[in-house]
Amino acid sequence: MSLVHSFTVIGTGAIGGYYGARLHQAGFPVRFLARSDADHVRQHGLRVDSPEGDAVLEVEVYDDPAEVPSSDTTIVAAKTTDTAAVVALLPQLVADGTTVLVMQNGLGVEAPFHRAVPGATVLGAMCFMCSNKVGPGHIRHLDYGEVTLGEYREDGRPAGVTAAAQGVVDDLHTAGVSASPVADLETGRWQKLVWNIPFNGLSVVLDANTAEILADESTRGLAELIMHEVVHAARACGHGFDESFVDRMLTNTREMTPYRPSMKLDYDDGRPLELEAIYAAPVATANAAGAPMPRTKVLLAELRRLDIANVKTS
Amino acid sequence: MSLVHSFTVIGTGAIGGYYGARLHQAGFPVRFLARSDADHVRQHGLRVDSPEGDAVLEVEVYDDPAEVPSSDTTIVAAKTTDTAAVVALLPQLVADGTTVLVMQNGLGVEAPFHRAVPGATVLGAMCFMCSNKVGPGHIRHLDYGEVTLGEYREDGRPAGVTAAAQGVVDDLHTAGVSASPVADLETGRWQKLVWNIPFNGLSVVLDANTAEILADESTRGLAELIMHEVVHAARACGHGFDESFVDRMLTNTREMTPYRPSMKLDYDDGRPLELEAIYAAPVATANAAGAPMPRTKVLLAELRRLDIANVKTS
Repeated sequence: MSLVHSFTVIGTGAIGGYYGARLHQAGFPVRFLARSDADHVRQHGLRVDSPEGDAVLEVEVYDDPAEVPSSDTTIVAAKTTDTAAVVALLPQLVADGTTVLVMQNGLGVEAPFHRAVPGATVLGAMCFMCSNKVGPGHIRHLDYGEVTLGEYREDGRPAGVTAAAQGVVDDLHTAGVSASPVADLETGRWQKLVWNIPFNGLSVVLDANTAEILADESTRGLAELIMHEVVHAARACGHGFDESFVDRMLTNTREMTPYRPSMKLDYDDGRPLELEAIYAAPVATANAAGAPMPRTKVLLAELRRLDIANVKTS
Repeated sequence: MSLVHSFTVIGTGAIGGYYGARLHQAGFPVRFLARSDADHVRQHGLRVDSPEGDAVLEVEVYDDPAEVPSSDTTIVAAKTTDTAAVVALLPQLVADGTTVLVMQNGLGVEAPFHRAVPGATVLGAMCFMCSNKVGPGHIRHLDYGEVTLGEYREDGRPAGVTAAAQGVVDDLHTAGVSASPVADLETGRWQKLVWNIPFNGLSVVLDANTAEILADESTRGLAELIMHEVVHAARACGHGFDESFVDRMLTNTREMTPYRPSMKLDYDDGRPLELEAIYAAPVATANAAGAPMPRTKVLLAELRRLDIANVKTS
């Protein structure tokens, strides 16, 4: 391993495009593996608009996974609905002893990657950021950007802050990204769900952005109830964190630029929704732990129907 | 009181238009009090399309409540969102000793009419029917038509089958309408809510008719869960009825013509939704009885937001 770590980014979307660009700007070798966007990025560069400054970057981009050099860290920034396709690519991209960083939402998202490349270290990352892909090779970063990450363990127990996790955190710091390691990845995953479960689902069901959900008394109350339901479910699963977390999340959301959550963007663009990772897996896990999550189940049932009808007509 | 009872119908919509037409066809004097439709009905008659036969009827129609002769029974078939306006008209329409028949959905709907005309007998009716108003003075009856009705008591306790209730049931029979008296109006109200709460709300939130809600596994499951939630709430409020009622309702719904419930029609036409009567009142009543109705509350919060956004843009 060289002192300057190299990165492969799978998925040049809102998340992968943004963090890959930051790492590239800081001088790390970054290889983007793209599908439909590869040609566009090769010809026009990767464009990132951000409150921190706009940039068009000439980057290393590949469409053939066989051509991508082996990197120290492979960032999986594809949607969970594409996990099966990414898993199929992984063995040729990821060498034993290297690291896979899973930048996805939801619960249980690391397991398929660990099974695909058992000789690699798998990290899970929670990205607290507002960023959209607005066109081919064009990312619009709106707000925030903090990453928390921790090492995945098959038994679900806290790995502590490992060298691999700290190493990626250090690289992100070098790239100017606010990042911190978490000792317990699963708890971090549940914390992210406290936001994702209400705001992603309600934005789709109600055709509303974050500001509209919070402006309306009934939907703000509902979002808050669902947030507490997720906190209780997390607690039942052994991931205790303080209820004040809900208030902090609400304050952050109130202060952010009105934002269409990623699931709403997927819905509006006719893409399948990440229902398994963000809803079905947490609901099943909480159910098994004796926490029934009735409100979340209502949202999930509604979203399943809207998803099917949406993908059909798109 | 003459042997042939007379009727005033307030609201010439899907419900009032249909039952009023049936009574008129059977020879009862029926006075329709209409608003925007009065002129149209006067000129073109009241048109009722029905599997039982189509008809265009020359009927007695009024737009000035002061001109309506006093009737033995006044049928309130306006939306609950119009209750305040109807209450204001009632004292000039309803004489002491006559009957008010409230053909509305929801809980607590009779109380305002009882307060407006305390010298009248107030009956509440549950109409199990699929009928739409499709144009001015034009009703399309699709399916069913059964009415159950019972006498309202201020203390909410069962009135038994009273002479007033039986009298209206007999008149409806004469008009060829399937009707039966209920000894306990409140229990009847809750039974109707077992259908209304899931199907009205889900049809709006999911933009789906009854067949689409039942065709999708997740929404059928959700509808069923909500139906059981309503049964449990009713039981907590002292209105025990058998859980098999849910299965019968589901079977009926499966067998009916695919149908947009009344709340979906209201929503699609930009009218305010009957959220207080169908959702907020049952939720508050059940809450007070220790039944929290979490799924129904999710629907209610979603519907409040959709209602506001809908009425604003209409």
